[in-house]
Amino acid sequence: MIIVMRPHASDEEIEAVTALIAAMRLASHVSRGSERTIVGVVGVSEDKETLLAQFAQLDGVESVVPISRSYKLVSREARSERTVVRLKNGAAFGSRELAVCAGPCSVESREQIDATAVAVVRAGANLLRGGAFKPRTSPYAFQGLGEEGLKYLREAADRTGLAVVTEVLDTRDVALVARYADMLQIGARNMQNFGLLREVGAARKPVLLKRGLSATIEEWLMAAEYVYAAGSHDIVLCERGIRSFDPQTRNLLDLAAVPVLLSLTHLPVIVDPSHGTGVRSLVMPMSFAAVAAGADGLLVEVHPNPAAAFSDGPQSLTLQNFSDLMARLAPIADAVGRSLPAPALAA
Amino acid sequence: MIIVMRPHASDEEIEAVTALIAAMRLASHVSRGSERTIVGVVGVSEDKETLLAQFAQLDGVESVVPISRSYKLVSREARSERTVVRLKNGAAFGSRELAVCAGPCSVESREQIDATAVAVVRAGANLLRGGAFKPRTSPYAFQGLGEEGLKYLREAADRTGLAVVTEVLDTRDVALVARYADMLQIGARNMQNFGLLREVGAARKPVLLKRGLSATIEEWLMAAEYVYAAGSHDIVLCERGIRSFDPQTRNLLDLAAVPVLLSLTHLPVIVDPSHGTGVRSLVMPMSFAAVAAGADGLLVEVHPNPAAAFSDGPQSLTLQNFSDLMARLAPIADAVGRSLPAPALAA
Amino acid sequence: MIIVMRPHASDEEIEAVTALIAAMRLASHVSRGSERTIVGVVGVSEDKETLLAQFAQLDGVESVVPISRSYKLVSREARSERTVVRLKNGAAFGSRELAVCAGPCSVESREQIDATAVAVVRAGANLLRGGAFKPRTSPYAFQGLGEEGLKYLREAADRTGLAVVTEVLDTRDVALVARYADMLQIGARNMQNFGLLREVGAARKPVLLKRGLSATIEEWLMAAEYVYAAGSHDIVLCERGIRSFDPQTRNLLDLAAVPVLLSLTHLPVIVDPSHGTGVRSLVMPMSFAAVAAGADGLLVEVHPNPAAAFSDGPQSLTLQNFSDLMARLAPIADAVGRSLPAPALAA
Amino acid sequence: MIIVMRPHASDEEIEAVTALIAAMRLASHVSRGSERTIVGVVGVSEDKETLLAQFAQLDGVESVVPISRSYKLVSREARSERTVVRLKNGAAFGSRELAVCAGPCSVESREQIDATAVAVVRAGANLLRGGAFKPRTSPYAFQGLGEEGLKYLREAADRTGLAVVTEVLDTRDVALVARYADMLQIGARNMQNFGLLREVGAARKPVLLKRGLSATIEEWLMAAEYVYAAGSHDIVLCERGIRSFDPQTRNLLDLAAVPVLLSLTHLPVIVDPSHGTGVRSLVMPMSFAAVAAGADGLLVEVHPNPAAAFSDGPQSLTLQNFSDLMARLAPIADAVGRSLPAPALAA
Repeated sequence: MIIVMRPHASDEEIEAVTALIAAMRLASHVSRGSERTIVGVVGVSEDKETLLAQFAQLDGVESVVPISRSYKLVSREARSERTVVRLKNGAAFGSRELAVCAGPCSVESREQIDATAVAVVRAGANLLRGGAFKPRTSPYAFQGLGEEGLKYLREAADRTGLAVVTEVLDTRDVALVARYADMLQIGARNMQNFGLLREVGAARKPVLLKRGLSATIEEWLMAAEYVYAAGSHDIVLCERGIRSFDPQTRNLLDLAAVPVLLSLTHLPVIVDPSHGTGVRSLVMPMSFAAVAAGADGLLVEVHPNPAAAFSDGPQSLTLQNFSDLMARLAPIADAVGRSLPAPALAA
Repeated sequence: MIIVMRPHASDEEIEAVTALIAAMRLASHVSRGSERTIVGVVGVSEDKETLLAQFAQLDGVESVVPISRSYKLVSREARSERTVVRLKNGAAFGSRELAVCAGPCSVESREQIDATAVAVVRAGANLLRGGAFKPRTSPYAFQGLGEEGLKYLREAADRTGLAVVTEVLDTRDVALVARYADMLQIGARNMQNFGLLREVGAARKPVLLKRGLSATIEEWLMAAEYVYAAGSHDIVLCERGIRSFDPQTRNLLDLAAVPVLLSLTHLPVIVDPSHGTGVRSLVMPMSFAAVAAGADGLLVEVHPNPAAAFSDGPQSLTLQNFSDLMARLAPIADAVGRSLPAPALAA
Repeated sequence: MIIVMRPHASDEEIEAVTALIAAMRLASHVSRGSERTIVGVVGVSEDKETLLAQFAQLDGVESVVPISRSYKLVSREARSERTVVRLKNGAAFGSRELAVCAGPCSVESREQIDATAVAVVRAGANLLRGGAFKPRTSPYAFQGLGEEGLKYLREAADRTGLAVVTEVLDTRDVALVARYADMLQIGARNMQNFGLLREVGAARKPVLLKRGLSATIEEWLMAAEYVYAAGSHDIVLCERGIRSFDPQTRNLLDLAAVPVLLSLTHLPVIVDPSHGTGVRSLVMPMSFAAVAAGADGLLVEVHPNPAAAFSDGPQSLTLQNFSDLMARLAPIADAVGRSLPAPALAA
Repeated sequence: MIIVMRPHASDEEIEAVTALIAAMRLASHVSRGSERTIVGVVGVSEDKETLLAQFAQLDGVESVVPISRSYKLVSREARSERTVVRLKNGAAFGSRELAVCAGPCSVESREQIDATAVAVVRAGANLLRGGAFKPRTSPYAFQGLGEEGLKYLREAADRTGLAVVTEVLDTRDVALVARYADMLQIGARNMQNFGLLREVGAARKPVLLKRGLSATIEEWLMAAEYVYAAGSHDIVLCERGIRSFDPQTRNLLDLAAVPVLLSLTHLPVIVDPSHGTGVRSLVMPMSFAAVAAGADGLLVEVHPNPAAAFSDGPQSLTLQNFSDLMARLAPIADAVGRSLPAPALAA
């Protein structure tokens, strides 16, 4: 941590800073420049925020600059190899093969899930997504089928060899969802629901952690750190667009986050172009771009009849759209040294 | 709802739209302009999002424009008078008198809370704030004293006549926090934790609902609608700054949200200039500005010794700062037809 | 400037950094921590950006932290007293008295300007605003009356004792506008039109510099530095809202920028609540809030008949609205130790 | 245009709206719903903003919804085929072949430009970029070599067969820059410098129009409309990142803008991953992603010695980096049905 003093800070002010450092049993280096004096602090403990708070308000201090990153366990420095998250059905995030999760926004009926599962596995997906518990902006909107939806997902996945990824919204539902799902999804709105992060981490299942709607990459990695510290080390990060000012798209898909994350963490990174744009016609080009940028996989909304979807119809691909997407994705994956998933294996 | 067709949409496309409207048992008006045709839909049900989804993807449709607002119960149209939220100790949000909530970010010890309570009640506050359960970006940061912290708050409040407002983070803790607090706070990170909104609403205690970090005003009112629909009608909205691009301040305090909300909802609105700026020296001018803009009260971080605070020290006022703030606030309140709180009444 | 090395940077990498510092004839301090090494650079020249560029790309460097601010002449450190910008008619920005600029978005006719000038001077304004050259998003929108508009402004101002502030858009028009205006306005879209900043600075007239639509406060002060360095020292900064994500208001008025600027620069700061919100009913509460926050004045759109305005009608006050605003503003100004302008003096 | 009345708007209020529509000699349709009345306006003139202004402020009006787009000439509806912008050296934007512009941020010397030109043409670029007039945030930063820089660019291009694209900052310099350049660049900071847009359009040279730092896509297309209406129809749009909240990257590259634009306009679209990220290591993955998303070309900063660059060193590729980028880009271009530029032809 570096403490930058104001121009003309007095000797007393500088001494107050070094005295506080000493009182915390830390070491300091004082460096007097022509304009400003700078105090380096060595041996800073974990709880950076608190330390920053204490120094920033001393007289004569202009700013406090953190040097160490706040996340430790998920940082690239913490692990020499990239994490590969492998599921029982052979799906892998972070390997040469891409992971492709496809399915509807909401589980609506057994027929809908079955039809989707059969079609997406045929097109080359290896995970089935679908929400049984739905976070909806309006209390009057469809909130999901709950456990019934989880059963439909499990059954469809077992028949097709797909793995199930589905969202959990409430700490009280973690055990229930974990009974049915292969991978627990934490949605954008819950990225800083810290109790949920801990509970999901403690379930020791693979986790799909979506980026919060206006989360910085550092905050996102801190959320991953919560899950990791709580026990689950199989965490996949999912970029799904952030809030911006242009109403042309639902969110602003931040594809540069993919290579940024690959440089900061050992965890795999996938992209959700459906929520990331909110517009069906943009899902295909953004899927191509995501894979070209280095993503380890995709999460795509697919629905047998988007016009009748209970939620997110306008951004859902039809089964045919998805099949086309996968066909056209193959040469792009190949061009960047990746491949589409190997066929999923039915149980 | 209005459906705008693309230029040169075919008659078949327009008919497909009106047919779907009819299939939903709604009425339509078709209006053919020189450039575009527009279809109005009358009698739209509650679940607007789903409807939007269905129309937006029909061939020939350019955009779907919602007309009715999604929030109903909290809208100004729903209630002819403004809601005044009154607590047992006489504090009121939405009356001529302002409500002033003051206290530390985190409850750290009995001594800290007692000293703060005595000082803020003397300076003119009528609610005591303080976090016993803390949402922290880092898993390694201080997470709060839990129930012990709630006890300290309750005791300090009972001695001084202050009411207690404190945050609840997890659906499983609502009953516990409700035993000690007069008002349940939902923090910015949980504004769309819909399970928590429902659980807090069902507790039928007064609720302080903070704006999410990048929530639109409409989304915020939808969150209030969740709480209201679940049973609690005593909801106070708290503007606390939104995310923006300039690192000069921690958040960007959106004071225009105050008069905007007063025009859209019957619920009272207060402002948190501490989180809204993150900088101690900005708390006083922004408190003045908030009251001048029409806010029904303030939520201010105050700490007996900010330099030793476990969290948010740089934005906390000292006890003396807070006393100065209240003294200088009185003439501004008076200039806009408001007054400082009447003295709180010890139990 | 501080150069933060990556964890485990090699000695060679650190030496490459210190060698480059030495090659630039600057001094360095190396500080080796348990985790990272930090190199301080002393005596950094003006052109900070270039220096940052050079170090940031050396092997082993994690980040480069600027310490000195980029603006010099406009910083508070550069001048012990606050700048007061005084115009010939007695209007002053930065004194105890507020400056109040009022008038239409566009100059539309002699009658419109005359009627506005008479009304706003009676209500207590001391500057007349109005655009003769209009920056319009659409090439098909009204672009202003040009020199004819400047004449109307000058004549109306001379008859009423108001000073004229009006926008200049093009380097080729600076001399023309300066012949008619008392104060040259640089609009938000031109805040980084550096040729225009220099040309306006060279005209040595008082300047009203609006904040760019998404400018940081530092970038804004750098724009002021351009004007100052080019010769004009009478610069007033005008906060007018920044771009954000909520469509409820046209822009997001950043009132915390007022006290932030008062701490960073000696220049006066005013607020434009008309562009800052885009909504007539919000202009009055935001004017109150601006003055309560410490602003040195206001810039308000006023039109004799907003419903017939060529531009910005929805955010323009009527003459009666403006008169009400001024009447209700007086006690708020008084409450924060300020006063409304003294009556303008007719020529 | 659609005018949405408030719930319970009176008949008089609705009549005032239809009367104003009639007074403008436009036709209206009134549609009374259960909750609200909606008035459609047919035959709206070009100057949408003014019209919106007039209706939005009538009593009883809740909102005014524009239906027609503001841009006409550049919209896809205006032209059945996509525009292909062809330069004399054979470079084309919008054809199957990509256009690749490469070169330094600033022209620093004849040697620097010559070395860059020789290397980038060999690697497969077909345009040479470089700034002779530089917009710099600081008045103390290097402002460019001016006409001398233009000469170096021209000479290097003539020797190598590259075309020259370079920025013009001031209306007074358009003729000068047009003498040397094949394509005039309008930078992000000048996207709404409307005088410059008109002057550049009148020069009838091909134009590269960068997106403003926080411009919506609609505002950007309106800027293109200015250029188009002024006479130049050979306009290329360049996405270069927008302002956002995460300091990890200099800007947030909005790649979804590429397919969005391809659906809205007939003009070609390229991407600048150098300014779009500000980080050298992100330029290659974002170049791949841009082409995968459907971009018609790239604008990349390349410098023979980035560590000594006068500006933008940290985001500049070395000559070797650029050569690697082109080699790895070829199969990705191929996978989406595009190809790298044909070799440039020396004069």
